[in-house]
Amino acid sequence: MQAKDIMTKKIISIDGCANIRHAIRLMLENEISGLPVLDQLGGVCGMLTEGDLLARCEIDSLSQSCAEVAKVDGALLNYIKSKAWRVSDVMTPNIIAVTPDTPISIAAKLMASHRIKRVLVLDKGELVGLISRRDLLRAIAYVPPDTIAPGDEALKLAVITRLRTELGLTSDQVQVAVHNARVCITGNIDSELQRQAIRVLIERISGTRGYVDELHLAPQIA
Amino acid sequence: MQAKDIMTKKIISIDGCANIRHAIRLMLENEISGLPVLDQLGGVCGMLTEGDLLARCEIDSLSQSCAEVAKVDGALLNYIKSKAWRVSDVMTPNIIAVTPDTPISIAAKLMASHRIKRVLVLDKGELVGLISRRDLLRAIAYVPPDTIAPGDEALKLAVITRLRTELGLTSDQVQVAVHNARVCITGNIDSELQRQAIRVLIERISGTRGYVDELHLAPQIA
Repeated sequence: MQAKDIMTKKIISIDGCANIRHAIRLMLENEISGLPVLDQLGGVCGMLTEGDLLARCEIDSLSQSCAEVAKVDGALLNYIKSKAWRVSDVMTPNIIAVTPDTPISIAAKLMASHRIKRVLVLDKGELVGLISRRDLLRAIAYVPPDTIAPGDEALKLAVITRLRTELGLTSDQVQVAVHNARVCITGNIDSELQRQAIRVLIERISGTRGYVDELHLAPQIA
Repeated sequence: MQAKDIMTKKIISIDGCANIRHAIRLMLENEISGLPVLDQLGGVCGMLTEGDLLARCEIDSLSQSCAEVAKVDGALLNYIKSKAWRVSDVMTPNIIAVTPDTPISIAAKLMASHRIKRVLVLDKGELVGLISRRDLLRAIAYVPPDTIAPGDEALKLAVITRLRTELGLTSDQVQVAVHNARVCITGNIDSELQRQAIRVLIERISGTRGYVDELHLAPQIA
């Protein structure tokens, strides 16, 4: 799937010169947590997000009214972020954007690595959409689960194949038995994390009706 | 204001043994981006958030089906997070919580420093509420703006006082004149950031009808 398949096309944006209060009302009324900020030519010049507003002076009654503020750049920046009434003073000027044909896996990775909640979708510089974490969730919700042919033999084959291809475990190390759709695994493992991964692998396979873990944790050689 | 004044009391939570798909549907249907996860005794054992779901295999078609996975702890953890079907395998087990009487400024600082979107409100270990960034936004939206007595003299006094208390700038450095609610500032500044902070200070004062910046940037001594 690509960005264009899941992006929201109805974008609520705000002018950089607008008042912060107006922006907050816009976010609350539309139940959104971020607004693309437009410059006077209509281009995107930043994002205003809930994160940008966490430092607002209205939240923090301990005002840092200190004669030193004017001398230190970091303190001045903090003063501006927490007190300004103009969107462009408070927004984050860095824009994380993809194009309409970017795979959604890339968009997800950008959100995870930058710890952001949305990426803009730009087509030749023009804002055409926005992908939020919720849009990705919707994409997950609609992926159909795997289907396995019925019967213990098919189930056993699926488990053995996945143990090998997904976890690199061969029948030398772990053995699989299936009776009445109940999967029993025996053999040796190296760690409890490996035991958990094997359980996860079995739980993903539709059609299993139970799981018996008879794996032995091999003693660690110091 | 304290946590109890702004917290959401209607909390939608999920059982750690529930299926991830069920959790995702719950998040989408209720338009929420995180669920407290309960253990079998009803205690909170973690949070499942949109962030925990960004690594799901359904998003990333490039499955890392590699024989090396089983040997490396980091890769096993990633395998479990991206493929597990049980909420407790995917959730973040760390809980960031406050008590009902925690000031909201502390809650805001926790969200900013941990880069999280919500904190739980626990009263003697029991989950009684949840504060999201949106709850903080609502608190900001309802703070009344400052009011200044009418007239140029009152406005001038307000500007002079704030320049001194908020930015440490005295009348030796900057001078203030007000005519017909139009504020004109002259004098010397040390940086463009200081110029921006002064503009922010003026824009915050209600009753001003314009701002003329006649400040000179002092040449920097190398």
